[in-house]
Amino acid sequence: MHSDAIRPWEELAELIAKKDAAGLESFWRELPPEEAPRILDRLSGEDRARLLELMDAEQSAILVEYIPEHSAGEIIEKLPASNAAAILHELPSDEQADLINELHAPEARAILAEMEPEEARQVLQLSVYPGDVAGGLMITEYVAYRAAVTVDAVIQDLRKNRARYEDYNVLYMYVIDDVGGLAGVLRLRDALLSPARAALADLAHKSVSVGSRDSLEELEAYFERYPFLALPVVEDDKLVGVVERDAVQAALAARSEQAYRASQGIVLGEEVRSMPVLVRTGRRLSWLSVNIVLNVAAASVIAFFEDTLSAVIALAVFLPIVSDMSGCSGNQAVAVSVRELALGIARPGDVFRVWRQEVVVGLLNGVVLGLLIAAVAWGWRGSPYLGLVVGVALALNTVVAVSIGGMLPLVLKKAGRDPALASGPILTTVTDMCGFFLVLGLATLMLGKLVGA
Amino acid sequence: MHSDAIRPWEELAELIAKKDAAGLESFWRELPPEEAPRILDRLSGEDRARLLELMDAEQSAILVEYIPEHSAGEIIEKLPASNAAAILHELPSDEQADLINELHAPEARAILAEMEPEEARQVLQLSVYPGDVAGGLMITEYVAYRAAVTVDAVIQDLRKNRARYEDYNVLYMYVIDDVGGLAGVLRLRDALLSPARAALADLAHKSVSVGSRDSLEELEAYFERYPFLALPVVEDDKLVGVVERDAVQAALAARSEQAYRASQGIVLGEEVRSMPVLVRTGRRLSWLSVNIVLNVAAASVIAFFEDTLSAVIALAVFLPIVSDMSGCSGNQAVAVSVRELALGIARPGDVFRVWRQEVVVGLLNGVVLGLLIAAVAWGWRGSPYLGLVVGVALALNTVVAVSIGGMLPLVLKKAGRDPALASGPILTTVTDMCGFFLVLGLATLMLGKLVGA
Repeated sequence: MHSDAIRPWEELAELIAKKDAAGLESFWRELPPEEAPRILDRLSGEDRARLLELMDAEQSAILVEYIPEHSAGEIIEKLPASNAAAILHELPSDEQADLINELHAPEARAILAEMEPEEARQVLQLSVYPGDVAGGLMITEYVAYRAAVTVDAVIQDLRKNRARYEDYNVLYMYVIDDVGGLAGVLRLRDALLSPARAALADLAHKSVSVGSRDSLEELEAYFERYPFLALPVVEDDKLVGVVERDAVQAALAARSEQAYRASQGIVLGEEVRSMPVLVRTGRRLSWLSVNIVLNVAAASVIAFFEDTLSAVIALAVFLPIVSDMSGCSGNQAVAVSVRELALGIARPGDVFRVWRQEVVVGLLNGVVLGLLIAAVAWGWRGSPYLGLVVGVALALNTVVAVSIGGMLPLVLKKAGRDPALASGPILTTVTDMCGFFLVLGLATLMLGKLVGA
Repeated sequence: MHSDAIRPWEELAELIAKKDAAGLESFWRELPPEEAPRILDRLSGEDRARLLELMDAEQSAILVEYIPEHSAGEIIEKLPASNAAAILHELPSDEQADLINELHAPEARAILAEMEPEEARQVLQLSVYPGDVAGGLMITEYVAYRAAVTVDAVIQDLRKNRARYEDYNVLYMYVIDDVGGLAGVLRLRDALLSPARAALADLAHKSVSVGSRDSLEELEAYFERYPFLALPVVEDDKLVGVVERDAVQAALAARSEQAYRASQGIVLGEEVRSMPVLVRTGRRLSWLSVNIVLNVAAASVIAFFEDTLSAVIALAVFLPIVSDMSGCSGNQAVAVSVRELALGIARPGDVFRVWRQEVVVGLLNGVVLGLLIAAVAWGWRGSPYLGLVVGVALALNTVVAVSIGGMLPLVLKKAGRDPALASGPILTTVTDMCGFFLVLGLATLMLGKLVGA
């Protein structure tokens, strides 16, 4: 609309070029927050790094959270280690660990060396966990006291260390025994509303806890079952952290997002278009080149039946229809299985049950679609035999497609592979080959009736 | 493993048949929570309703949260209205409203009539908001006081109404003026750790707030920008509710999930395989029948070039390869655009920028893939012209596919349509038609060189 007005990212680049720290501060203060990702995306990597150097660590940390994790790692690496350490200090411990895991080892070591030893130790400790288990999602910002401590002593401690606890989400306090074992939990407000001389031991409830290696699915189930905002994480009988409901939700959202991207062929991590062209091209090609090999393999079935095809050239029109439609049906079954796996309704062992339930749907839909396409073929060429061939082929191939589409995600899950990612190309290749084979094979059997159609 | 052992859902069905309330209570207590969705899924709809009648409302509410929303509505409708009202009472207000929205009007009215008038009024008020704006995601369980109230009076009120606040997540308290306007906010613990006679007016900060019609994207941006666990929702300058970070995260996860399902052709709400076969068949067919029309339309391009095809039958092998590969390339571009839209990096108005950035990737990948397929064609048939035709067709069609795939989601978003859902079939139809046209059109132009290939 204001095509003559200066664009916000140009204004930002100018402020960075002028090293105008005060101008930058007011730029971000005035910017509506939902604009930030788009504007940061338009900056070059160098400008982003310069921007973070110019802003104070607290503001930089807010900006870092707007940048996709992979790019954030690249920018952090460009900063002097002391700046990077100061920014990391402002992030919650789980994000610190995620970011450190994105860096190359020398840069990561340099930054850790600039951090307070205790903080660096915690980051290192958290960074050993995979991102999708309780240990990788937990934070270490929690408060824990011995059972004999009184409410009054807790309040004294909270007041005294107010600065430190300022950024904690202190919702619960944990009660630990002499060796660091989790003895109970109570809500902050339950403690604060209790008599000053009450000991925590008398106020605490027995706590539900999760293991540091518990999977995202298990955490989801816990948070669905219990109304708590956070759960303590235990390893070797010791309290080691707290996983928040929010962190589990965010991880689930990221996983759904990843499943969607994978199903569409973006497989090597996220892509944003501000990445270098060769990176984007290379990543997409890695997936496409697998697909082209599978495609050529599937199409070789057509080459095998070339004589039939030249005798009944009308078949060529129906080959892509049968293979595409079966692919659609199969993908629907894949989506239902991926979802049932995620919800915990289906297990990898349920392959037979899933197959039984898919076959019925496949038969019904196959018959409907087969009749439709048979009518089109008959109407177009006036040959009931052509209709019979393509109709039966589509009906049978629909049953094949939903069977494979339904079972494949379970099998892949059992084999430890990503069901959303690998199902697509395997399914398509099989349904293509099988579809081509059914159309051309049936046509070969009925060649006498078909010639001239 | 224990194939002779009784399965947990059979045990559950038996307990329900025997109306063994105590047995049911211990069944759920002993069951690992992650088993619950799978077991509930195996029960018939009637058994699920009977189960909820047998359990107390609090436990029933926990079970209801395990059941996908659509099925939960069906079960709630089967219950006597008073039981349903008691279960609803145990749910947070946003879930009450969501569930009421799933019911048919007469059942919804009957249940609301059984609820306390104040609660029913709140549910009705919440149920007018769409599920993906602040009003639809907010809860009304929050505490608010006038500015002149002292810390001591707050503590008295919290203690007195402990039973009512028990299930609230009281993290913040809101300060309101005489007409219900939001005057400020403070954390519960900041209030509790302050002198007893301090007035809230002196402790409260100016609060960030969101509007009741603010979109999920805007809420996401707010929660990214601010570290708060909940934000107050304001309508007509009045405080009307609180939206929690957790609720926004859950809605984002559901949306990603929906995008994935839509991209795979599950479009009319979620499907689980325990739904009736005809419902599942019908829903999937509604999508497949759109696709078959588009498929037939695309394939009619082949029929148009039948003479060329019978002269050079080898082309039939390459038609599905060119159309499938272009579909893959286009879907990659769709996935990147859907993600950039969700992240706020791309806007519907960025169509030209997106196109420019896709064309480069499309050209590079098109050339690589075109060379590959040309080599296959040349090698197989010994005809460089066949290689030229299919290679050039694939290269050009890749550029077309990524251009459309990149821009389509933005255009659909601008038109208010779901970009993840509608992009797929439109893209595939265009890339199929265009791919068939390019292969057969180029072949027609070079027919003299190709015959015999």
